Amino acid sequence: MSTERLLAEIDRLPLVDHHVHGALRHDADRSALEQMLTESDRPIPPWMTQFDSQIGFAVRRWCAPVLGLAPHADPETYVARRTELGTDEVNRRLLDASGVGHYLLETGYKGEDILDPQGMAAASGRPVDEVVRLETVLEDVARTGVTAAELPDRFRETLAARSATAVGLKSIVAYRHGFDFDPGRPDDHEVSAAAGAWLAECAATGTVRVSHPVLLRFALWCGVDRGLPIQLHAGYGDPDVELHRCDPLLLTRFLKNVEPYGTDLLLLHCYPFQRNAGYLAQVFPHVYFDVGLGINYTGMRSDTVIAESLELAPFAKILFSSDAWGPPELHHLGALLWRRGMARTLGAWTDSGEWDLDEALKVVRMIGHDNARRVYRLEDPA
Amino acid sequence: MSTERLLAEIDRLPLVDHHVHGALRHDADRSALEQMLTESDRPIPPWMTQFDSQIGFAVRRWCAPVLGLAPHADPETYVARRTELGTDEVNRRLLDASGVGHYLLETGYKGEDILDPQGMAAASGRPVDEVVRLETVLEDVARTGVTAAELPDRFRETLAARSATAVGLKSIVAYRHGFDFDPGRPDDHEVSAAAGAWLAECAATGTVRVSHPVLLRFALWCGVDRGLPIQLHAGYGDPDVELHRCDPLLLTRFLKNVEPYGTDLLLLHCYPFQRNAGYLAQVFPHVYFDVGLGINYTGMRSDTVIAESLELAPFAKILFSSDAWGPPELHHLGALLWRRGMARTLGAWTDSGEWDLDEALKVVRMIGHDNARRVYRLEDPA
Amino acid sequence: MSTERLLAEIDRLPLVDHHVHGALRHDADRSALEQMLTESDRPIPPWMTQFDSQIGFAVRRWCAPVLGLAPHADPETYVARRTELGTDEVNRRLLDASGVGHYLLETGYKGEDILDPQGMAAASGRPVDEVVRLETVLEDVARTGVTAAELPDRFRETLAARSATAVGLKSIVAYRHGFDFDPGRPDDHEVSAAAGAWLAECAATGTVRVSHPVLLRFALWCGVDRGLPIQLHAGYGDPDVELHRCDPLLLTRFLKNVEPYGTDLLLLHCYPFQRNAGYLAQVFPHVYFDVGLGINYTGMRSDTVIAESLELAPFAKILFSSDAWGPPELHHLGALLWRRGMARTLGAWTDSGEWDLDEALKVVRMIGHDNARRVYRLEDPA
Repeated sequence: MSTERLLAEIDRLPLVDHHVHGALRHDADRSALEQMLTESDRPIPPWMTQFDSQIGFAVRRWCAPVLGLAPHADPETYVARRTELGTDEVNRRLLDASGVGHYLLETGYKGEDILDPQGMAAASGRPVDEVVRLETVLEDVARTGVTAAELPDRFRETLAARSATAVGLKSIVAYRHGFDFDPGRPDDHEVSAAAGAWLAECAATGTVRVSHPVLLRFALWCGVDRGLPIQLHAGYGDPDVELHRCDPLLLTRFLKNVEPYGTDLLLLHCYPFQRNAGYLAQVFPHVYFDVGLGINYTGMRSDTVIAESLELAPFAKILFSSDAWGPPELHHLGALLWRRGMARTLGAWTDSGEWDLDEALKVVRMIGHDNARRVYRLEDPA
Repeated sequence: MSTERLLAEIDRLPLVDHHVHGALRHDADRSALEQMLTESDRPIPPWMTQFDSQIGFAVRRWCAPVLGLAPHADPETYVARRTELGTDEVNRRLLDASGVGHYLLETGYKGEDILDPQGMAAASGRPVDEVVRLETVLEDVARTGVTAAELPDRFRETLAARSATAVGLKSIVAYRHGFDFDPGRPDDHEVSAAAGAWLAECAATGTVRVSHPVLLRFALWCGVDRGLPIQLHAGYGDPDVELHRCDPLLLTRFLKNVEPYGTDLLLLHCYPFQRNAGYLAQVFPHVYFDVGLGINYTGMRSDTVIAESLELAPFAKILFSSDAWGPPELHHLGALLWRRGMARTLGAWTDSGEWDLDEALKVVRMIGHDNARRVYRLEDPA
Repeated sequence: MSTERLLAEIDRLPLVDHHVHGALRHDADRSALEQMLTESDRPIPPWMTQFDSQIGFAVRRWCAPVLGLAPHADPETYVARRTELGTDEVNRRLLDASGVGHYLLETGYKGEDILDPQGMAAASGRPVDEVVRLETVLEDVARTGVTAAELPDRFRETLAARSATAVGLKSIVAYRHGFDFDPGRPDDHEVSAAAGAWLAECAATGTVRVSHPVLLRFALWCGVDRGLPIQLHAGYGDPDVELHRCDPLLLTRFLKNVEPYGTDLLLLHCYPFQRNAGYLAQVFPHVYFDVGLGINYTGMRSDTVIAESLELAPFAKILFSSDAWGPPELHHLGALLWRRGMARTLGAWTDSGEWDLDEALKVVRMIGHDNARRVYRLEDPA
């Protein structure tokens, strides 16, 4: 069976997880753990458990044995074992068993609850590079007491400094506005006007959260100028997104406007719009994508999500990520489900004689490793 | 094979069909029957037959044996046998063999052609509860000679009376307008103004059919206040729908507005937007969905439609319905294809060792029975 | 295995390729060939090859043996063998082995690089009928020195003459504007005003390319009046399309407006909106569709794309096309992948006992041959 051979080879591949966040710093009880196994930010109702879901079943099937339990351990047993082992040991075991060789860590979201790059490197024993979130830098600038007129230059300087050793940037314009934004570059005059309104709002509310479309576009275009690859959250995410406004096709004009600048754009997750992302990756040389978050949360169905990502896009334009945040179960399953889905999909194609086994392996290496190394200019030996 | 064991267990499960209409009252000749095996309201052209379709093939494969014919009976033989047995016997056989244990009957559409709740209970020998269509109640109020100023209060009173013993409400705003409506609650002043225009139109045309968006929103918000679970037609339906305006994602802001009221919302059918519905069911605690009508009309492909419904949503948020209207073949196939699709999908997952068989059975019971009982507070022993 | 029997029968079926372009006239080196194996019009970057894609793998697997090479021949060997055989022999071999029995050739795009109807008939030994592109006729009229006032009548006359022996018309409004156009018929006054603006622009720029929505709608409605079946490009195509504006659902009101005229409309490709197209084909008697271009470019995944096209639409409303343009590999693979995908999909359904083998064969004949003959009133013996 090609699937078995493929799986054996794939299991040895040191993946580059090109979009991921830190593992948890602290212990989590059952309620806290369940709340991190969904993109919902609403409390889980008492009449249900998030363990009764694709991801919940996958955690119990695949992570339980890594913690020394039988597959399909019940939730109580699973959480008790987690507590017994302690956060550090749970992190160490699940990260190590994932076989990920290199993490590109996005550090912009709730950094205090999760490991920072140094912490992840220590917990995993693997190299970690940083991806800087544009909106977080902008909000940090606002917190320093900048004036509206100063904001454009101050943001550019701060971004340059913050990303000096970063390998990529990240945009969450999908969350804060949607992809139906004006695809042109705003001028500094517009930006200062918008900054004036925003800074006043920050002062009035005491909350610094950027959602003004002019400022979001400004941050994005500064990212384009910075020249590092830019990751864009696309598709499925928490209830802040209006999902129909996060279809990557809505970016078409923006993609065309960015094309002459030579900056690479990476569409993250894209679920359920992965076919649309594949189209964009075929026709635009600077556009890449993955099905990151869509793998973990669809569990047994991730085979199909992965297969759907292997349609229009040339194989040089597809990447792997877990988008894990918090529980190292997510880091582990992201890699495991991707390996299984690739082995099953490509295994069936080679078994039928329509794909060559060596070329199937080449495709696995491209998507799991080589493409990310090329796009992000990674220099580690992995 | 887990599929076989699952199928045996699933076959014994008394399903709650949470959105269904009555079976036919009268005999149907071949032409009438074909016309009810499509969502098109156009006459079937003479150069084709609706029996040459997924649902047509499924009727002949699965319903023919229930009527005492060989599988794959040709259409002439099939229709002749139907006529020979008579409507009552055809209804009795197909409803009984479906193994449905409880019907939630929506009574708002073409009630004169089909069995009412009492008739369905008699034909099936199973308990029947009622779901009341909001727009039908509003049109009934208009027919009573109400003034525009009286309409808001009169509607609220009539709805309370009509739904006194109902278990749920239903909205067809998808048909009458689309989901791209203003998600806010209209005030009574706006409603009376819209009612004035509508009642004048009713008087001028002699036709009472509500499509004014303010009135549709008014009916919906009265439903929210009523507190019963509200079913919303979503996705695929007859040519009255503009399908791209019936993507449930377009409801996102409305769902958020309803959330504080504690009223449950159930998205029906959703085809081909079932993945979008799964997203909404994950992130919003009060949102549920099914793939009802999408099962019958995709026949052999319903396995895939069902599998796509098992991605993001927690298993506590998915329900079963047939949306059958008229021919009891639809009531029968809705249950049969759902049972087969669940058994095949979950059977493959348990065969691979990734799902536990007992938990697969639990998921089947949740979707086919338990979730509906909880949402609609059903008290029958089924 | 039903799949084997089905494949044997399907292999003998002389397909009607109802939307296709000419095969290449001239030799192509590796770079030129790769550039024609993608819908991108951007140069393929030096760090990748288009052979590392679904279509690239399919060419090497399936076309290499037709040229006398082993399956999976590497790109260098493959291109060298092509050059050795020469364009005429490559065309002859690949067209002949495709088993296509009748070509409906759309002649409106880059005619100078590819074979015309006579050339295709000679190269393939099969009958060729013509499909006339509306926008090309309109642009030809503009090149003749017409005035704005004369344009409406001149277009109608020229269209009548150009399509006198054609079997169908084609619209690329999806490329030039998107489907979000005003669905009504423009009057000649509006058309002349738009023509005045366009002709002035043509004179100023020296480029004759119609994208004015009024003129595109005018051409389309003239096509409706002409009465021949109209093919509409839908979904996936080159970077000129904004894919989200090419969802065939956006045509709903236009389809309703055309319905009383009795002109058939054929939605081409539709990827990734094939399910939406299936809905339209179920509810509107004059609407048909295929998954043409989506088959070739998804390679191993075309089985799934084909299966998704077999959901809502009655089997009398689905057609086969390759949309091949240029390399005869595309003509060959379009037929081969369709045959394999149909055999696998319907084979699994007959193996399970749910479809009857003879009826599965009937469905294959309808989609591959009979439906096209009926819609286009073809008279050849194929």
